[in-house]
Amino acid sequence: MSHSLSTEPRHLTGDKAGLREFLDKFDVFLFDCDGVLWSGDHCFPGTVETLELLRKNGKQVVFVTNNSTKSRADYRKKLEALGIPSNVEEIFSSSYSSSIYISRILQLPENKRKVFVIGETGIEQELRSENVPFIGGTDPAYRREITPEDYKLVAAGDESIIDPEVGVVLVGLDFHINYLKHALAYHYVKRGAIFLATNIDSTLPSSGALFPGAGSMSAPLIMMLGQEPTALGKPSQAMMDAIEGKFQFDRSRACMVGDRANTDIRFGLEGKLGGTLGVLTGVSSKDNFVSGPVRPHAYLDKLSDLLESDY
Amino acid sequence: MSHSLSTEPRHLTGDKAGLREFLDKFDVFLFDCDGVLWSGDHCFPGTVETLELLRKNGKQVVFVTNNSTKSRADYRKKLEALGIPSNVEEIFSSSYSSSIYISRILQLPENKRKVFVIGETGIEQELRSENVPFIGGTDPAYRREITPEDYKLVAAGDESIIDPEVGVVLVGLDFHINYLKHALAYHYVKRGAIFLATNIDSTLPSSGALFPGAGSMSAPLIMMLGQEPTALGKPSQAMMDAIEGKFQFDRSRACMVGDRANTDIRFGLEGKLGGTLGVLTGVSSKDNFVSGPVRPHAYLDKLSDLLESDY
Repeated sequence: MSHSLSTEPRHLTGDKAGLREFLDKFDVFLFDCDGVLWSGDHCFPGTVETLELLRKNGKQVVFVTNNSTKSRADYRKKLEALGIPSNVEEIFSSSYSSSIYISRILQLPENKRKVFVIGETGIEQELRSENVPFIGGTDPAYRREITPEDYKLVAAGDESIIDPEVGVVLVGLDFHINYLKHALAYHYVKRGAIFLATNIDSTLPSSGALFPGAGSMSAPLIMMLGQEPTALGKPSQAMMDAIEGKFQFDRSRACMVGDRANTDIRFGLEGKLGGTLGVLTGVSSKDNFVSGPVRPHAYLDKLSDLLESDY
Repeated sequence: MSHSLSTEPRHLTGDKAGLREFLDKFDVFLFDCDGVLWSGDHCFPGTVETLELLRKNGKQVVFVTNNSTKSRADYRKKLEALGIPSNVEEIFSSSYSSSIYISRILQLPENKRKVFVIGETGIEQELRSENVPFIGGTDPAYRREITPEDYKLVAAGDESIIDPEVGVVLVGLDFHINYLKHALAYHYVKRGAIFLATNIDSTLPSSGALFPGAGSMSAPLIMMLGQEPTALGKPSQAMMDAIEGKFQFDRSRACMVGDRANTDIRFGLEGKLGGTLGVLTGVSSKDNFVSGPVRPHAYLDKLSDLLESDY
């Protein structure tokens, strides 16, 4: 599937009339965060003022993040630490997206409503907020070595270790991943549990380098099971559906803003949003946006160029 | 690539003349172990006598195992515990295969001779036996959580955590796998280290069920790197080359015996051995052997049917 647009993306930096026309088209702006609003621990100049401009003109702002280790409340604190005012309702994380998908979209039988979690506290907080029962996660009982006895109990499906009520395995980024967790997740799926992933980014950027991402937690299971999980983060449309479910917006009046053509821009294009806006402060280059296989409707040198609109 | 033989595999059980003719053709028998000689903790009746028959007729017997957690010495003890006499020189494990490959086949620069190990003591013992320096493995220093400081040091390539002499990453089954080990392995390969795997079996059979295998340890790295490791276990021909390097046998006078068509029999066929012999005491069925895409030259109901030869 190709998302090339036949027309070249419009470069809006310095084009006041073009900027105003573009802003007029949308009621909702979905933002990728790192590479758009900030980089690492450094907020870009003008980010706060740009968000203010949008809000003051009645635009709905949504922060969309694949980071599953944080809850929306944690993420709001992160935004605050970077100097960006926000409220929890504006934040949409893959942990929240997953929780909504499980509680509102999956129709689980009454005796199969529990989730076995591979992941950190962000997932747990969001599952709790949706009243979804879960096991695993940060529970210290799962942060241990596998024992000879475990093999027998797991193989036998003994209820001391295999909870018969587990109907979903949800895999997110887990800094305490281990052999036991993978063994249990595998057995739950083999016994019929639905295999979900908060997101499948193979890497996680940190300190200017790459580290194992949430996708790396799913990789052993994908190999063992010969089965891909349903992913609830960008660019999966399950996340777009969840965002729409919450905000009830008109897709033709929504715009996705991002720095990466093959995730952010693709997410907006496949979601058939009215607009996509690339920025050059992150991963993709002008060349990627202008000549690549996935092109935004428009692009800016940097997000704060929106301020030139005097909107 | 297909390994179908145009002729149907010969069923040798009960065919005394056929058995004697088959045995006459070979000087060396390579054995897959679990499913052929034993199952789980249970030695098949007649295994010991069959091996005796072969040895007494001057046949070289080699036990070929993908199990990387054990050294050859450990594996000999396992055979002994099952009641099967053997000596270390008859055993060929993927940990040994990997060590030979690193010490005798790879031409590493003088300052890049160290191996970063993901795996258990079997690998360490075999690397030591070949005088290959290594770090990682069972060292408790690597059995810990990643810290915020680690991200910075790893990203900076600081020598307190990234050893500049590492030129190989060797990944085997590790019951103590964790985030830090995967992060380090990834960075070593990105910095130019050769990516090896003892074997890439995604699962490990135990207690009649499946658990994460050595391939599951490589899976996150494969996903992050977009690169497959060179595998040193069956059915990789790197293992056959290593076996040949050690035993200096004539491939046309060697026979691979196994219970799995797509690994054991394929291993023998791709290695252009004179013969392959399937047994029906493990994974593959008669149908697999007779009508499947990978067919042995001959098959037996069970290994001890060789005793009917009165050889």
